[in-house]
Amino acid sequence: MKFCSECAHPVALFIPEGDNRPRYVCAQCATIHYQNPKMVVGSLPVWERDGELKVLLCKRAIEPRHGFWTLPAGFMENNETTAEAAIRETEEEAGANIALGGLFTLLNVAAVHQVHLFYMARLLDLDFAPGIESLEVKLFSEREIPWDDLAFQTIRTTLELFFADRVKMQEGGGAHGFHSQDIIRPMRFHSDPHSEPG
Amino acid sequence: MKFCSECAHPVALFIPEGDNRPRYVCAQCATIHYQNPKMVVGSLPVWERDGELKVLLCKRAIEPRHGFWTLPAGFMENNETTAEAAIRETEEEAGANIALGGLFTLLNVAAVHQVHLFYMARLLDLDFAPGIESLEVKLFSEREIPWDDLAFQTIRTTLELFFADRVKMQEGGGAHGFHSQDIIRPMRFHSDPHSEPG
Repeated sequence: MKFCSECAHPVALFIPEGDNRPRYVCAQCATIHYQNPKMVVGSLPVWERDGELKVLLCKRAIEPRHGFWTLPAGFMENNETTAEAAIRETEEEAGANIALGGLFTLLNVAAVHQVHLFYMARLLDLDFAPGIESLEVKLFSEREIPWDDLAFQTIRTTLELFFADRVKMQEGGGAHGFHSQDIIRPMRFHSDPHSEPG
Repeated sequence: MKFCSECAHPVALFIPEGDNRPRYVCAQCATIHYQNPKMVVGSLPVWERDGELKVLLCKRAIEPRHGFWTLPAGFMENNETTAEAAIRETEEEAGANIALGGLFTLLNVAAVHQVHLFYMARLLDLDFAPGIESLEVKLFSEREIPWDDLAFQTIRTTLELFFADRVKMQEGGGAHGFHSQDIIRPMRFHSDPHSEPG
């Protein structure tokens, strides 16, 4: 940030009176330009038939991580709820019809100023198709998942927690719980990690 | 937003190519200025002795809702996790030492582009004191809570869910669960609902 978005004068970075951290402040109109974390919201769409379980992944057609696999997810927009964002992103990126379940993971990625949320989802049919931001959309069983070609650490963590929960459910019943974790070392890319992930 | 924060030229509001909603776009450098929801994070500090349970509330010294009661909470900052934000806000607004528990509520307030998160917390001692944004900090039993003088609907909802959980726990055991709700009609104020709540 170099200029004030309200009056176009240059901004300066300093700790405003009564505050305790540096902010971009306009030298002309005194507007304080707060910068806050963004939410990335998506779903974990599951298809289960005849005892076989598969999850839906999208191959990214955009940077960062072009060509790598992700769960459908993207930046939450104004005027929508987290659940609406998860359904919208699943529709936009995978063309998939889902019944949204409960919140499954909340993953802090403080290093890039993001919080990622993933909802459980049940795939309603097989009429999915890649949206403009995906090269391919495909169902994977646990052993088919391209673990070395996943786009983001939060995708890996969410999938790992999902299959770990499945083992516990098969052993002793119960349901998918809610998990919260901090991602200390997000994957590093050549491209800007702050850029729109979908 | 009137001017580009990168080059100071005027921005225009239109749907960029390949997008599906209006964005502020710079006519000069073509930067797209995305606007996304903000997270407000806080805690529900509980003090329990000799079978009596109380919760910690802060009387707001700032707008919006000056003079009304709130749980300690505020906008999440860059470079921190949601749990760190909850602990920081509790320290800043209530001077309170807490042991943070699990995420208790996720409340969407889409009308004002906010998502509010409240964590369960156990008050470690009674050495709390109002910070610069609070007039007063006080413990309240359920019947003492100033229900008509609460600052925000998300505070009311979180407290109601907490005491409803307590009833269930006394009847049949269990623990505080995670709750997610959409706040359709946030409280309306004379002051700007978008302004910093803490």
